[in-house]
Amino acid sequence: MTLNIGVIGCGMIGRDHTRRLQQVLAGAQVVALSDVNQANAEGVQKDFAPNARIYATGEELIAAPEVHAVLVTSWGATHEPYVLAAIAAGKPVFCEKPLATTAEGARRIVEAEVQFGKRLVQVGFMRRYDAGYLALKEAVDKHTGAPILVHAAHRNPAVPEAYTTPMAIHDTMIHEIDVFRWLLNDDYVSARVLYPRNAARSHTKLRDPQVVVLETAKGVLIDVEIFVNCHYGYDIQCEVVGEDGVASLPEPMTVDMRLGAKRQSTILTDWKDRFVASYDVELNDFIGAATAGGATGPSSWDGYAAAVTADACVAAQSTSGEAVAIALPVRPALYA
Amino acid sequence: MTLNIGVIGCGMIGRDHTRRLQQVLAGAQVVALSDVNQANAEGVQKDFAPNARIYATGEELIAAPEVHAVLVTSWGATHEPYVLAAIAAGKPVFCEKPLATTAEGARRIVEAEVQFGKRLVQVGFMRRYDAGYLALKEAVDKHTGAPILVHAAHRNPAVPEAYTTPMAIHDTMIHEIDVFRWLLNDDYVSARVLYPRNAARSHTKLRDPQVVVLETAKGVLIDVEIFVNCHYGYDIQCEVVGEDGVASLPEPMTVDMRLGAKRQSTILTDWKDRFVASYDVELNDFIGAATAGGATGPSSWDGYAAAVTADACVAAQSTSGEAVAIALPVRPALYA
Amino acid sequence: MTLNIGVIGCGMIGRDHTRRLQQVLAGAQVVALSDVNQANAEGVQKDFAPNARIYATGEELIAAPEVHAVLVTSWGATHEPYVLAAIAAGKPVFCEKPLATTAEGARRIVEAEVQFGKRLVQVGFMRRYDAGYLALKEAVDKHTGAPILVHAAHRNPAVPEAYTTPMAIHDTMIHEIDVFRWLLNDDYVSARVLYPRNAARSHTKLRDPQVVVLETAKGVLIDVEIFVNCHYGYDIQCEVVGEDGVASLPEPMTVDMRLGAKRQSTILTDWKDRFVASYDVELNDFIGAATAGGATGPSSWDGYAAAVTADACVAAQSTSGEAVAIALPVRPALYA
Amino acid sequence: MTLNIGVIGCGMIGRDHTRRLQQVLAGAQVVALSDVNQANAEGVQKDFAPNARIYATGEELIAAPEVHAVLVTSWGATHEPYVLAAIAAGKPVFCEKPLATTAEGARRIVEAEVQFGKRLVQVGFMRRYDAGYLALKEAVDKHTGAPILVHAAHRNPAVPEAYTTPMAIHDTMIHEIDVFRWLLNDDYVSARVLYPRNAARSHTKLRDPQVVVLETAKGVLIDVEIFVNCHYGYDIQCEVVGEDGVASLPEPMTVDMRLGAKRQSTILTDWKDRFVASYDVELNDFIGAATAGGATGPSSWDGYAAAVTADACVAAQSTSGEAVAIALPVRPALYA
Ligand SMILES: [Mg+2]
Ligand SMILES: [Mg+2]
Ligand SMILES: [Mg+2]
Ligand SMILES: [Mg+2]
Repeated sequence: MTLNIGVIGCGMIGRDHTRRLQQVLAGAQVVALSDVNQANAEGVQKDFAPNARIYATGEELIAAPEVHAVLVTSWGATHEPYVLAAIAAGKPVFCEKPLATTAEGARRIVEAEVQFGKRLVQVGFMRRYDAGYLALKEAVDKHTGAPILVHAAHRNPAVPEAYTTPMAIHDTMIHEIDVFRWLLNDDYVSARVLYPRNAARSHTKLRDPQVVVLETAKGVLIDVEIFVNCHYGYDIQCEVVGEDGVASLPEPMTVDMRLGAKRQSTILTDWKDRFVASYDVELNDFIGAATAGGATGPSSWDGYAAAVTADACVAAQSTSGEAVAIALPVRPALYA
Repeated sequence: MTLNIGVIGCGMIGRDHTRRLQQVLAGAQVVALSDVNQANAEGVQKDFAPNARIYATGEELIAAPEVHAVLVTSWGATHEPYVLAAIAAGKPVFCEKPLATTAEGARRIVEAEVQFGKRLVQVGFMRRYDAGYLALKEAVDKHTGAPILVHAAHRNPAVPEAYTTPMAIHDTMIHEIDVFRWLLNDDYVSARVLYPRNAARSHTKLRDPQVVVLETAKGVLIDVEIFVNCHYGYDIQCEVVGEDGVASLPEPMTVDMRLGAKRQSTILTDWKDRFVASYDVELNDFIGAATAGGATGPSSWDGYAAAVTADACVAAQSTSGEAVAIALPVRPALYA
Repeated sequence: MTLNIGVIGCGMIGRDHTRRLQQVLAGAQVVALSDVNQANAEGVQKDFAPNARIYATGEELIAAPEVHAVLVTSWGATHEPYVLAAIAAGKPVFCEKPLATTAEGARRIVEAEVQFGKRLVQVGFMRRYDAGYLALKEAVDKHTGAPILVHAAHRNPAVPEAYTTPMAIHDTMIHEIDVFRWLLNDDYVSARVLYPRNAARSHTKLRDPQVVVLETAKGVLIDVEIFVNCHYGYDIQCEVVGEDGVASLPEPMTVDMRLGAKRQSTILTDWKDRFVASYDVELNDFIGAATAGGATGPSSWDGYAAAVTADACVAAQSTSGEAVAIALPVRPALYA
Repeated sequence: MTLNIGVIGCGMIGRDHTRRLQQVLAGAQVVALSDVNQANAEGVQKDFAPNARIYATGEELIAAPEVHAVLVTSWGATHEPYVLAAIAAGKPVFCEKPLATTAEGARRIVEAEVQFGKRLVQVGFMRRYDAGYLALKEAVDKHTGAPILVHAAHRNPAVPEAYTTPMAIHDTMIHEIDVFRWLLNDDYVSARVLYPRNAARSHTKLRDPQVVVLETAKGVLIDVEIFVNCHYGYDIQCEVVGEDGVASLPEPMTVDMRLGAKRQSTILTDWKDRFVASYDVELNDFIGAATAGGATGPSSWDGYAAAVTADACVAAQSTSGEAVAIALPVRPALYA
């Protein structure tokens, strides 16, 4: 059985997911496309999905009877209404981050899904599907003993002038926020932000780097260096310290070379390369669950929890190192 | 367009490739199955390809009009006739190693394909598709300067009593034989085998370890340690020394752990895990080329060259360290 | 010319330094010994310095005309009076940490030395002589650009019940406090302490682990994990993040082994082994400077700055994550 | 008690050893110097040993009653007569490699020492004192099980035109020849040399690189890549494969840096830096044994065995890959 998918939003990521569904992954085909700019949809249709029908609006695409499941890869502000429409239609929906642009929006999706009574939404937190994080989680679960500390870094070579301090949370650290909840099987209770001096390559509207400190309900203390103008490369580090030992996120595979009096290996510079393999895995997971009529993987609740946490981190950016509390309502049984 | 594939041989590897084609990869479906033991074919049909038709013989499967392309994953001695039949039928064929059980058999396939006038055969030398070897090849091509030496090791934890000295070449080193020809873009001119004392865990019918030394037409000297009872793990090492520097095959991705006064990471013990990702890539390559009516990747000629080289290595196992010459006929233009 | 040294305090460290001076290093000999327990002095005399004279008190030893320079390796509370006496006698003195048990005591030594008008005191902060930290300092000075962040860890396998929370600063983190001032060529302006949950192996009188966050005058933010019951080993980590890149403290030299499906190397468990080579280097430095009549290396001022910082860190252990300010008086010209 | 040493040969290495004895190591002083060019001796006297007496000849220095022990650091051709003279005088003697310029010469020294009845000679094979090789030996003795294979490389960035093919053995591989006998506690029985094409940076009188294959009495097979124009650095590699696992020689300590899209660390380029610490240790060993009237460490017999092996390797450079046998006479009991 082949899953018929409709893709809303035919920009870079919608195009890439369509390619993936048509040319890489088994079990699904793209039968419908939509974009506010119809030329985008036509380009993707031409390149990857000649048999797909183009719909004028995401709502029409969601309503189309031949569409079994929906990918929302449009502009962030449109995610909430499209996901709500998919839930209303009872169709599985994969939504790229953010699930909604506000925590309240994410909560409305959670409530709609709870009312529907069954999981339909998967959020595009792809790091949970990365082989490195999966191996780290196994090491933590089996070998290090219960986690006590996490030391992490999210470094990016450079950002444009338009990138501001809160974006370091919403656009960059959002991945750590989600993946550490999953890695630790835990929830956050407070956030704190500490600043060194600004890096010389930073901008007037950006404090960079910053160190975000999160505490969890189980008492784990997490420090995350966010450095988006680190210059040298795109580098993701994570070390978990447990009762019995320490485990570290694997480095990307590299060739060790000895050249010119240097032992050396390549560091990635483009974030798109770092977790590229995990996009295949997350969509494969979506195809499997959607074919069975539901959703697994990162949930609406996870998207909501990430949004609430991100808001607390942004608030903490202005409290001179004071901790900001993070409180979630009771987790609905649907997400137990 | 979906490529219709027939699979001949429904043992472990045929079953796994069928799963891959049905559940993992886009663009192909398994429409026909055959096995000398029909129950095997029925098991694979039931588990992965309920719509596939079961044929009594490989020859009938090859002749079936709905079959566009063939996978030969049967017992080694049957590879040659099935591949020849596929060529005669003008159908693309993916053949697991060995292409044939003798160099003469492989050469008959080369001649049939040359006569057909177009490449139809891909041999299952999956290491060429491994991300690590691909990265090593890029490092050699771009950074180390022209290769001069290769130091390699192929270590396996243990083999049964039935495994004999020549099998260290035909079943184990055959992968190095192929992948170094590709890595260096070169041909072999001699082989030599040197023995240390036998390992305590070896058997009466097996000299283990052994060091095989190959020379290439361009003057590269390759030493390969083959140690099939090394006990500690399945470990593949390769270091290329060039005019300007050295590059090494990446280690498999691992989590670095600090536990019990040891910094440690896991070494694989099962060869099936080492290059597992490359099976997807090689079959994806086959699907693409076969859909276009031909074949790319490791060719009949590569299978033939590997067979000739393996025969020389086996001969060299009995020459007390003397070099045995390796000579190939002129390479047909089809494989230029 | 041979430097005649008197050693006050013949416990473990006094014994070891005497061995070093007598059997390892050129240029000095131990001519005088003293210990509150005379049997200790006699044991060291017998084992390493048969020609040394035993003095009843440290004061007499300092006053002895044949003694050119003094090593203070006695109980911490006695350091201050012995160092003051050596300064009064105009004799170079090497003092193990702490220089004094209070910041005020350390300041009295600074003032005495300033009044004397010349450096006579070297404090036993041996990490400044460690080849790893020296290499890191060179990397920071030449390659990483100006430092912005330091991430560090000081892990110890286990401590006895008598070890309390403030000792994590005074006995353990004191080394990071000194070595980062030197590494960054900077001074601290605030300290903050953050706690995760207590480790299961910790004790009722000890919060363990803890994360100490220091800010420097130049705006560097330093986080140091102190974990004295980490169980797995004695492990010192330090990563400096600068404008252009990152540099890490080298790991101790180890043999990489592949055994039993694990790639592994040894982690030290005894802190005495970690910087053992640097004791030779620091004493060699002392011999050279003392032979010339003065002192170089870690100064009284460094000892005082470390004491002030340690006090602030201890104060910060009770402020629920609030920063505690660190202020030093103007640095005397003697220590410019 | 201080050991009075006389140094014969005041070139680079004699100067450096004199500095070591005078300024670094305890227990010895240089009381006598000699050099064919007296200005060299005067320079060393002035810089490091103002109280040393200068002798016109090595023979007079050896005979001088104040000289307890001798260092031979003169031109290679003079080693044999000076060592023989020291033995005749019953004085411990440290001789830089080569012990003699011919195997016969080395054997005459062995015979003289055997006749004297007690070990007096230490040969300057410093790698046995290197912390890395010592750690490797411990790993092999305790963890890897009995050795079966050794893979090694000795790479040097460049050599002058005057460096010829046999020098790759006598000047370069001589260190591997000695250290592997010690590491494996074994003797060689054959040598074989295999050549790839010549490196582009090699010279007309030099085959470079070459692979020397040694077999031992216990059946260990050793391959050593000698590449003296490898360009990228001075790099010494050694991997021992045993019954239970593999152990590798530690890399020199380096700072891991992340800069400009490269993870990188420094590779040495000057051989003098690679084992510099071991010179202190070997001389310290000599001081201890000579003070007790004898010698330990690498013996005359080791120097003789190395010379015989080197001769076989040079012979094997001209046998087109044929093995050349290595046979030593019965080892005198003095060297058991
Ligand atoms: Mg698909
Ligand atoms: Mg498929
Ligand atoms: Mg001394
Ligand atoms: Mg000395």
